Amino acid sequence: MGSRPKLHYLNGRGRMESIRWLLAAAGVEFDEEFLETREQFQKLKNGNHLLFQQVPMVEMDGMKLVQTRSILHYIAEKHRLFGNNLKEKTLIDMYVEGMLDLLEMIVMHPFSKPEDQPKEVVSMTEKAVSRYFPVFEKILKDHGQTFLVGNQLSLADVVLLQTISALEEKTTSILSAFPHLQGFSKKISNVPTIKKFLEPSSKKKPPPDDTYVKNVYAIFAP
Amino acid sequence: MGSRPKLHYLNGRGRMESIRWLLAAAGVEFDEEFLETREQFQKLKNGNHLLFQQVPMVEMDGMKLVQTRSILHYIAEKHRLFGNNLKEKTLIDMYVEGMLDLLEMIVMHPFSKPEDQPKEVVSMTEKAVSRYFPVFEKILKDHGQTFLVGNQLSLADVVLLQTISALEEKTTSILSAFPHLQGFSKKISNVPTIKKFLEPSSKKKPPPDDTYVKNVYAIFAP
Repeated sequence: MGSRPKLHYLNGRGRMESIRWLLAAAGVEFDEEFLETREQFQKLKNGNHLLFQQVPMVEMDGMKLVQTRSILHYIAEKHRLFGNNLKEKTLIDMYVEGMLDLLEMIVMHPFSKPEDQPKEVVSMTEKAVSRYFPVFEKILKDHGQTFLVGNQLSLADVVLLQTISALEEKTTSILSAFPHLQGFSKKISNVPTIKKFLEPSSKKKPPPDDTYVKNVYAIFAP
Repeated sequence: MGSRPKLHYLNGRGRMESIRWLLAAAGVEFDEEFLETREQFQKLKNGNHLLFQQVPMVEMDGMKLVQTRSILHYIAEKHRLFGNNLKEKTLIDMYVEGMLDLLEMIVMHPFSKPEDQPKEVVSMTEKAVSRYFPVFEKILKDHGQTFLVGNQLSLADVVLLQTISALEEKTTSILSAFPHLQGFSKKISNVPTIKKFLEPSSKKKPPPDDTYVKNVYAIFAP
């Protein structure tokens, strides 16, 4: 039970990156086994290591966890990053679900046709600044606290910071109209465990490049 | 706090149907306010009743809950349909996430081009019988119990039965190779609260028809 979690995924962000952020924020050291070939993936499937024949998979506490959200929930519950009561937990859950809808677009983006990508960036940016960021800006403004929920670090803060950081890579000024999110971003980036994850030597993955996209197709394409 | 939940959605299944199933299974009576026009939807958005400008929304216990999964989780936690400990909860969460991936295809199906729909049914059926149903068949066979997790009714049983029932409408014989799922389906359908929900007078919605599809476009299309 006490051993380090082992993450099974490609050497890239994809749907595993939120899990890396969360483990890092929780101060949990982890190992990674990178999928590099179709055969490796097939071997994981054949060995019944993947409940629904998909990654992300995380070996942790004697379980083989699958499904991004379920893995995030488990880690958040275990490490007390899911609020102090059911109401706080539900707020965190709702905020995270909103962010994951946005992150899903970011995860799928490198697989769109190159000619569609610029307008997709416009559409993501527009969704972020019109639908999602105003909600979090208002929450932070209204309660005046550092964290989104219950005045302490939670899954919601981690996923929001990950989302902001991924979007800022595409649209540098995306927070310009959101002063409280700017402050949030600075403060959460300075939480010691997260600060460490943001340093170059960490297990945080770089933005997806052509090699990553090629690997995904090579490993998963039917 | 003691008042009945009020569901805000169209008069159709969509992403609200799992929530209706779960409330019914928990024995919770609820009211529905059906969205019928674009103006009604705009009014909900203008009144800041929808956190991310989307439905499903459920008014419950003084909150305006959004995001299908978050609503399911809240109801499941509140009504003890989410396991007895973190491991059981995580199993339930993973099983539900698998089912929701399949249900998402079912929810989007009526909005595909008519000429694409038959091959989509083939693809859904194939996914169900190759990726998802074998997992649940094996779980039931291995532990020999009535329910998927912890020998008591949970969110996972409810969502699995909903999924089976939706798929059987399209492919009647979909369970033919899964005797334990057939038994499961019969037994869970006979849980008194669920049995009541399966009667014609309940708030269970019929399969989506052309009118439903037209309403969705009329209300939501940008």
